[in-house]
Amino acid sequence: MDIEKLKKIVGEDNLRDDVAELYIYGSDASVHQTDKAQVVVKPQNTKHVQEVMKYANENMIPVTARGIGSGTSGHAVPIDGGIVLDLKDMDKIIEISPENIICKVEPGVVNDELNRQLQPYGFFFAPTPASGKVCTIGGMIANNASGIRSVKYGATRDSLLGMKVVLANGDLVEFGSNTRVDAAGFQLARLMVGSEGMLGIVVEATLKLTPLPKLRCLAISKFNKLEEAGKTISDVMSSGATPSMLELMDDIAIQSVNKAFNLGLPDVEAVIIFEADGMIEATVDGEIERIIKICEKNNGFGFEMSYDAKRRAEIYEGRKKLFSALSRYREGYVCADLADDMAVPNSQMAATAHAIHEIAKKNNVIMTAYGHCGSGVIHTKILLNPSKKEQWDDARKAVEELYDFVDSVGGITSGEHGIALSKAPSWKKSRMDIIPITREVKKAFDPNNILNPHKLMDAPDDWVTATELRYRVKE
Amino acid sequence: MDIEKLKKIVGEDNLRDDVAELYIYGSDASVHQTDKAQVVVKPQNTKHVQEVMKYANENMIPVTARGIGSGTSGHAVPIDGGIVLDLKDMDKIIEISPENIICKVEPGVVNDELNRQLQPYGFFFAPTPASGKVCTIGGMIANNASGIRSVKYGATRDSLLGMKVVLANGDLVEFGSNTRVDAAGFQLARLMVGSEGMLGIVVEATLKLTPLPKLRCLAISKFNKLEEAGKTISDVMSSGATPSMLELMDDIAIQSVNKAFNLGLPDVEAVIIFEADGMIEATVDGEIERIIKICEKNNGFGFEMSYDAKRRAEIYEGRKKLFSALSRYREGYVCADLADDMAVPNSQMAATAHAIHEIAKKNNVIMTAYGHCGSGVIHTKILLNPSKKEQWDDARKAVEELYDFVDSVGGITSGEHGIALSKAPSWKKSRMDIIPITREVKKAFDPNNILNPHKLMDAPDDWVTATELRYRVKE
Repeated sequence: MDIEKLKKIVGEDNLRDDVAELYIYGSDASVHQTDKAQVVVKPQNTKHVQEVMKYANENMIPVTARGIGSGTSGHAVPIDGGIVLDLKDMDKIIEISPENIICKVEPGVVNDELNRQLQPYGFFFAPTPASGKVCTIGGMIANNASGIRSVKYGATRDSLLGMKVVLANGDLVEFGSNTRVDAAGFQLARLMVGSEGMLGIVVEATLKLTPLPKLRCLAISKFNKLEEAGKTISDVMSSGATPSMLELMDDIAIQSVNKAFNLGLPDVEAVIIFEADGMIEATVDGEIERIIKICEKNNGFGFEMSYDAKRRAEIYEGRKKLFSALSRYREGYVCADLADDMAVPNSQMAATAHAIHEIAKKNNVIMTAYGHCGSGVIHTKILLNPSKKEQWDDARKAVEELYDFVDSVGGITSGEHGIALSKAPSWKKSRMDIIPITREVKKAFDPNNILNPHKLMDAPDDWVTATELRYRVKE
Repeated sequence: MDIEKLKKIVGEDNLRDDVAELYIYGSDASVHQTDKAQVVVKPQNTKHVQEVMKYANENMIPVTARGIGSGTSGHAVPIDGGIVLDLKDMDKIIEISPENIICKVEPGVVNDELNRQLQPYGFFFAPTPASGKVCTIGGMIANNASGIRSVKYGATRDSLLGMKVVLANGDLVEFGSNTRVDAAGFQLARLMVGSEGMLGIVVEATLKLTPLPKLRCLAISKFNKLEEAGKTISDVMSSGATPSMLELMDDIAIQSVNKAFNLGLPDVEAVIIFEADGMIEATVDGEIERIIKICEKNNGFGFEMSYDAKRRAEIYEGRKKLFSALSRYREGYVCADLADDMAVPNSQMAATAHAIHEIAKKNNVIMTAYGHCGSGVIHTKILLNPSKKEQWDDARKAVEELYDFVDSVGGITSGEHGIALSKAPSWKKSRMDIIPITREVKKAFDPNNILNPHKLMDAPDDWVTATELRYRVKE
């Protein structure tokens, strides 16, 4: 690797190759860790990205693109060494154009910051990931991220109109359009969404703006049985209701956020949290009432309902901080992002929530069921004692059983966090049919296989041993 | 070509190779016509498609997939001869699952028939193409079709969750999922949308169901100036309003439908037709009033507003039949689908409508400006005397000038009808940067280049001479 050459491209200040820095860039929010990264390069503009890619491609050097590193599947873990391409500094909001109902941003722009800037114009960027405070638009595109409002407004792919992309060979191309309909050639912009850093580097994204509703009302319903809460979610969605949020939290999730943040959620087996939005109160009330009726039919009770922005913010914050709350659930245990975002058909919510608990019990780990169930995503986390080797064997078994269940009910391995390393074994097992064409598409974009190689279809077959783990395990 | 072998695959009754039949299959709704098709094959099931593709691939025989043939760009015109794969008979609605908020259909299912079947469940398939009475879901997927409701509900890509695809080599694969979020591998289902029959044959599609609104209210506003109507559309969309329909019709369009169907539309320079939908009247009224205010600000007048289903149906029908109405606009003239569906950024509606009229005048043809302008699509048609060779030269010039204009304001060649043959010269001119990667993607899916070859990036450089024209031209 010609470090001097790279310094010349991005400037000395924008390159790091000291051990401490490389250590940090060896992991993301997944369980994985590697010490293979050779250099971190921080491009400041598109030209930098093009020149770095050209150099890497000519010299067959792996390149792992990275936003803030909040990914939970290991996308940003540079398992093949080479260059880590840190895109955080490319964080300009290039244009906000309400007259064209779009904005143009660089990949390092942070989701919540973008929404702060859009707010005065009466618009927002609709995917609302729980990690919105830190996650970058580039990372959201790479993962087809979604979040609590995806139930009404869709995932990143649904708000993405066009982009500028630096290809593996350094060429700059434009995919997609400035318009909300587009039948002009293959949908390459949509293909880039969810491509996990394996097909190209997005250096500019054209995003669709969604009108901000004037009103949002949040409501909570309690349930004494998890299965009734799950069934309620399925019933709400199949009734044709259009909530702007429809979340499940099981008892473990409830206890965790109460303990960590004093949130005062009810001590029941499950709650569902839902929101309706709109321009006038009658619409919003109508939607909330309609959903409450469905809750009642399924033995929901103890409704709380609030238009108050402060109370809403409290609940959202609690929900968003669930991950850190879970980490404090039991002394000596950590909360590992494993099997954390499967998506299942709407009718399978209750069964999946139930399966999560059963599989956890059977395998000596703690698992919680929660998530954007209205859009099909059931999150879980696995709480385990990371220092014990056998707990990782337990986790491996639990993950495999859970994904087998998800596959058996017509669900998928990942709804919003991507495959990369930790979900690859299960994804490969369930999607044998598309591995060859996935490889061909990768080859079409990246013939030298330098962009985030050995992820997804080419990842190792066991996630536990795919890399070092980000925890100290006693042998 | 081994006709007997093909007969064995699909059955004798499902193969045609007589001249009369081949003539019909030599054209679609575009200006193009060819006599090169050698055989029409009508698969009855997925197995048939797989075997036909396997045979074609092994023998390097071109295959042109076809729905009803209502495409306006020449996708279904078999310019390389070989096999026409008529998918109309694969028209089963496999499953309607309100509990999973999806349906599964074969490619030959007709849009309006699907919506008739969905209606009792309280859902619809949201893209609403004007050709809904005849167009097939397979064709809509191939073109990323949209329509009058795309302004609120998006295009086909936004309602498409998963699919079964027969690849060029006959392999059957599944892309996408049953869920509304999906981060499990590359978005190959979304890539198939808009792939113009060039990447694979969709044999089953999983579609997202959208809740049917309880109420729809239609309104019309008149304008004495086309530009004020255009500006109104831009203003409505950038205001954050969410109409479920927002259509422009210029004077030629108005006169045409009035003349042909006695629709009684006002004799003004332009009207906009808009609709709001919702669950309660207050929401719908609020939306309509909000839009009317914007109309008034731009000198709109003579509002008509109706919840009445009969009057709404009348107007929709008139709008949908505009194409046939335009064909009767002037004796001896035909209405040709050329430059018929460009999409431009929202702020460019007035300027584009104006440009259409200017360019028409300059080039001795008649052009009309209308369309789903709320979602960025401006339709036009070119009315010309098809028997005169110089009129085709006029049309060529008009098309080129119009697309140059569209390109200069950041628009695209096709919003919803695809590129294929008649838009390929302009698409290629404006998208030079992505032709190489488009070819690589095509090669990844279809290494022998048998699926609808010589369309899009590989189409001839002059649409007038690309094929025979579907009209008798005197030399």
